[in-house]
Amino acid sequence: MPKSERNLIQRIRRQAGAGASPRGRSPVIAGIGDDAAVLRLAPGQDVLVTTDFSIENVHFKRDWHPPEAVGWRCLTRGLSDIAAMGGQPRAAFLSLAVPGDISQVWVDRFLKGLLALAAKFNVPLAGGDTAQAVDGIQADMVVLGSVPKRTAVLRSGARPGDHIYVTGQLGSSAAVLARLRASLPLGADSARHFRPQARLLVGQWLRAHKIPSAMIDISDGLSTDLHHICEESGVGAEIEADAIPRPRSGRAKVASVALEFALHGGDDYELLFTSSKPVPSRVEGVPVTRIGQTTRKKGMRLIVARGQEQRLEPKGWQHFQKKS
Amino acid sequence: MPKSERNLIQRIRRQAGAGASPRGRSPVIAGIGDDAAVLRLAPGQDVLVTTDFSIENVHFKRDWHPPEAVGWRCLTRGLSDIAAMGGQPRAAFLSLAVPGDISQVWVDRFLKGLLALAAKFNVPLAGGDTAQAVDGIQADMVVLGSVPKRTAVLRSGARPGDHIYVTGQLGSSAAVLARLRASLPLGADSARHFRPQARLLVGQWLRAHKIPSAMIDISDGLSTDLHHICEESGVGAEIEADAIPRPRSGRAKVASVALEFALHGGDDYELLFTSSKPVPSRVEGVPVTRIGQTTRKKGMRLIVARGQEQRLEPKGWQHFQKKS
Repeated sequence: MPKSERNLIQRIRRQAGAGASPRGRSPVIAGIGDDAAVLRLAPGQDVLVTTDFSIENVHFKRDWHPPEAVGWRCLTRGLSDIAAMGGQPRAAFLSLAVPGDISQVWVDRFLKGLLALAAKFNVPLAGGDTAQAVDGIQADMVVLGSVPKRTAVLRSGARPGDHIYVTGQLGSSAAVLARLRASLPLGADSARHFRPQARLLVGQWLRAHKIPSAMIDISDGLSTDLHHICEESGVGAEIEADAIPRPRSGRAKVASVALEFALHGGDDYELLFTSSKPVPSRVEGVPVTRIGQTTRKKGMRLIVARGQEQRLEPKGWQHFQKKS
Repeated sequence: MPKSERNLIQRIRRQAGAGASPRGRSPVIAGIGDDAAVLRLAPGQDVLVTTDFSIENVHFKRDWHPPEAVGWRCLTRGLSDIAAMGGQPRAAFLSLAVPGDISQVWVDRFLKGLLALAAKFNVPLAGGDTAQAVDGIQADMVVLGSVPKRTAVLRSGARPGDHIYVTGQLGSSAAVLARLRASLPLGADSARHFRPQARLLVGQWLRAHKIPSAMIDISDGLSTDLHHICEESGVGAEIEADAIPRPRSGRAKVASVALEFALHGGDDYELLFTSSKPVPSRVEGVPVTRIGQTTRKKGMRLIVARGQEQRLEPKGWQHFQKKS
């Protein structure tokens, strides 16, 4: 193992140890520094595992994203997946490959952002791997979570006639990305892009109250993630364009984010779920909005102003770069 | 999500589904195709998690390694980590990033190699992530395993005066690598490099019989992995050069692999453990050899012919490329 890489492991271990003083009992019996991490979960729990690759110039750009934001966003992707199952995150694992031109300062700031979010949700960084990258930074984030046995909320449980809901507001992250791309000044709500919030408490509350028939997080964009629920559940969907919650600004409360961003923009990390039950308009402080319903008829349709219907295609998730 | 990437997920899902008809009860309740995989482990088990990054031109070369071998070796690294804890692998997760110039055939052959090994040990491929790589193939392999509560074998349990053992023979993989590097014809035992064997049954047997005080797998090379045990356990070590098991050939049974390869060569995936108890000379069909002992005096020493002692430095784990 080259010295630089051993240093990287030691730095992660030191920072992870300093950052994580888990409140309550930690499930991590043995963490960084053994062949595998050892975790002890409470009895009666199912284990959740999610992995997300974040790749420089695909998922982030060094010019656009401060290292803290890259670290925060890497972990958000995994936490949001656990939220979408109604689960509780228990431990995170980071595989990080950095090229030779990356400074120690960059890595330290990356870890700082990641560990700030980990501390917020009491998730210890329990292991991972480091490697030398030939070109560009690559981070694979694994989050292990738990959920009471047989209660994980899948994508496949929606029935025709269920109502469709989203948490929070959609499109902010894509709007920030568009401003970055056009070199425009960023708005006040740019934190929605740089430090998105995984809806863990909302997901857990919904699961505990047996409300969702199917749930997914909006990471690829509403159109694509709704398409996933439709595919896995074997249903279609009708969405009301006017009902999609978007940030509003000014006295007239005009939507400040284009409908296209709310429909197809990724990285919002809100929850999208279906239910046939009564749903409160606010859960754990987060607004919950009905945007349409599932249908027996396959395919997705968007109902625009004056009741006109148009086909809704899954067009979410843009790479920063076109394929080389 | 671009079409090529969706195709990749579908291809993995199809192949994983076809390849994995788990014998006995699978722990995977929901696998590829949801936000997170859902696993149900038997009660009374601790959870093991290991992640290993395999990066083109760092851990493998397209010119040297057939895609099947790359897939096999990726999974071996994780299985071997689970073996070193005395555990049973339960599920694997693959995060795969491929650049635009990689053919579908390459990916299919990679998955074929990976899934052949997964089937051998009855490990379902339960999820993962795919992404577009900017340059070069990157695969992060996560293996989740289990071990009866409180029995995981750590690196930190060695006491001064314990005997040090290795399974199998060391140095073959590095010898093959040296031949690849020198464009020499490969020997008959090149499978040791292309399709290494994780010592899962040996690790489980040793753990079940409470034999190892500390254990690690030899992935970075004997000198480096022994160093890890010494560091984590707070002991030193003395190794007898002549005792290190190396492949032998010809009538005179001359070692066919240089001592340097056996000392510092990585990718052997044998087990290295310490014990104060009687140890059989063969476990699950694999030879087990005593090569030295741990000491109160810190540092590692190599006892060469005629009782001469020299300092042993951790020099294992060579990248294929020097730092760019």
